[in-house]
Amino acid sequence: MKWKLQPVLFWAFLSVYTLAFAQPPRGPFVISPQVNSDKTVTFRFLSRAAKEVKLNAQFEKAPVAMTKDTSGVWSVTLGPVKPDMYPYSFVVDGISVADPRNSAIFPNEGFQNSIVEITGDVPLVHTIQNVPHGTVSYRYYNSPELGTRPVVIYTPPGYEKDSKTKYPVLYLLHGTTDTEETWTKVGRANIILDNLIAQDKAKPMIIVMPYGRAYPVISKSSGSLRNWENLQEFKKDFLNNLLPFIEQNYRIKKDKDSRAIAGFSGGGGETLYLGLNNPDLFSWVCGFAPGMLKNEFDRNNAVAFEDPAKTNQRLKLFWIGVGKEDGLYAVISDYLKVLDEKKIKHETFISDGGHTWMNCKLYLTTIAQKLFK
Amino acid sequence: MKWKLQPVLFWAFLSVYTLAFAQPPRGPFVISPQVNSDKTVTFRFLSRAAKEVKLNAQFEKAPVAMTKDTSGVWSVTLGPVKPDMYPYSFVVDGISVADPRNSAIFPNEGFQNSIVEITGDVPLVHTIQNVPHGTVSYRYYNSPELGTRPVVIYTPPGYEKDSKTKYPVLYLLHGTTDTEETWTKVGRANIILDNLIAQDKAKPMIIVMPYGRAYPVISKSSGSLRNWENLQEFKKDFLNNLLPFIEQNYRIKKDKDSRAIAGFSGGGGETLYLGLNNPDLFSWVCGFAPGMLKNEFDRNNAVAFEDPAKTNQRLKLFWIGVGKEDGLYAVISDYLKVLDEKKIKHETFISDGGHTWMNCKLYLTTIAQKLFK
Repeated sequence: MKWKLQPVLFWAFLSVYTLAFAQPPRGPFVISPQVNSDKTVTFRFLSRAAKEVKLNAQFEKAPVAMTKDTSGVWSVTLGPVKPDMYPYSFVVDGISVADPRNSAIFPNEGFQNSIVEITGDVPLVHTIQNVPHGTVSYRYYNSPELGTRPVVIYTPPGYEKDSKTKYPVLYLLHGTTDTEETWTKVGRANIILDNLIAQDKAKPMIIVMPYGRAYPVISKSSGSLRNWENLQEFKKDFLNNLLPFIEQNYRIKKDKDSRAIAGFSGGGGETLYLGLNNPDLFSWVCGFAPGMLKNEFDRNNAVAFEDPAKTNQRLKLFWIGVGKEDGLYAVISDYLKVLDEKKIKHETFISDGGHTWMNCKLYLTTIAQKLFK
Repeated sequence: MKWKLQPVLFWAFLSVYTLAFAQPPRGPFVISPQVNSDKTVTFRFLSRAAKEVKLNAQFEKAPVAMTKDTSGVWSVTLGPVKPDMYPYSFVVDGISVADPRNSAIFPNEGFQNSIVEITGDVPLVHTIQNVPHGTVSYRYYNSPELGTRPVVIYTPPGYEKDSKTKYPVLYLLHGTTDTEETWTKVGRANIILDNLIAQDKAKPMIIVMPYGRAYPVISKSSGSLRNWENLQEFKKDFLNNLLPFIEQNYRIKKDKDSRAIAGFSGGGGETLYLGLNNPDLFSWVCGFAPGMLKNEFDRNNAVAFEDPAKTNQRLKLFWIGVGKEDGLYAVISDYLKVLDEKKIKHETFISDGGHTWMNCKLYLTTIAQKLFK
């Protein structure tokens, strides 16, 4: 009857206002993660049964062993850690689990990580500060093929206060198995823009973060993500449903010089495909460690490769960022060579680190200061 | 180097468009949960190492054993299940974990559950349908004592299209250890209102869902949730910061007959305390399995108990809902007796089931059709 103990008594305990009952019945009260003033971080996980618990944090090269105290609380203190936001999970007897004491979750369909933020002595660009904040809106639009589709939209500070100003728009695509929430919850896209706008480093803009998987048409029921077929369906949805929904419902500048597209990983692949093959739509195209295969360069870049001069003339920014330790570094380097051979103008941003959201935040911060200028 | 294998190669694999690489390297592709056409549900969890995996779902009375296949995938098929949305988790060798293949997460600071929806033959009131949808906005407001505070706000369909109409407002409070997201992600408050408004069963209204914990003033660093002290801080924040922020930033009717408050569990306790002790603010007060203690009845209801006639005269609705199997059923029954003794008018709604979000959706659906009428 463990289940009955949990939802019923557990909530009853927590609902009443007594110290005695204020602790979950499952064991001692556990705080995790605990960011200490010296920038070390203490992680804790409660399990009397586990034989081995490790911490798998993206600021470490490998999982770190945790030690259990007499009450069954496993813990480890690491760092000082370089200020940033990092995904992490506990590996409990080989099973990767999110931190049950941390409500900051990495939205993803393939795994679950938790997020820990180590703030800097000077607030970082993704840290929530006391500046005017934009609004993050969760909306639905309709697709005849795909049904009701979720989209997350950032409008800059003051958008609601005035009914006239029109804004440029950045379409920002998530990575494969991410969701429409990953760019705000892990990428802090809204907070980064709030801070850059407050410092007058970025133009006020609207950011549209759609969901990139074409379920149910591209069914989940096989092991394959069928990314190419998915991209064809997503393209249809993007052009026929999402873009009209945004332009009808938001005060948007509708010329191509006021329209940008950027994306990470699988969403970076989608970004290049949509951005380079729709000459009349986008003047700003930014790939963040874009997913690609060498044998698909010609197919996926057909329009851009066909007439490099025209491509250079119409694009105000063609930007590619990737980390030196990224698994995609090699293929993206090959791609950059092809762009050079074809004399297609582009900006390259080679960072440290790998295929991480720490780099995504850095890439967004970098391009947000270039867009629409 | 397991870590390097995951974020780097895992993402690289998923970023490229080949069938061969489209599966996470961690094992066979796992679909979970899988809702079948006969309303049975198949749950799957990948773990070669685990000795025992159980499914802990709120439509079952107790955890159910799962069985492992030769590839290390544990599974169980249950039901047919009564159509609704249910929290569930896997219990892996005694450790409760969310479903890593399901991005629908129960926002909570005390545990992690996943959410599965079994749709009905006729769509239920919380099921996303092709009707006009309102907007769910994530906003921040500032508190001198508590810093930048998150709040989630539902505006009804058409709110953005027109700049004149003013709306009544429902302040909707989450349970202890829930977050400002729980009412939309688990309670589907936005979808319930979209559907009720489309059917002309509820008045278009704005719903304000604040975060109820007064961190950092009420520190996390003790085992005690210090709910009474928290309530005092939350009250200050609610009255001094949240309410003015909402009334300045949204088109709201500002009379008390256009202002309602409701909440679940710990938030239900907050609801009665704020709603009954601020006679000039709220004409509509609804407790969903409200958290309370018998020895606190007099303190927490001081103003209402002082002058029952006045209380009856000023309240348009005083509504209490609770489930027969709820751990709080006994104390709430005592409270209802006291209301009867004092001749304080109230509506009582006794449902089946326990202290669950299935009941929260039912309670919200019930009161949403009464408010502002």
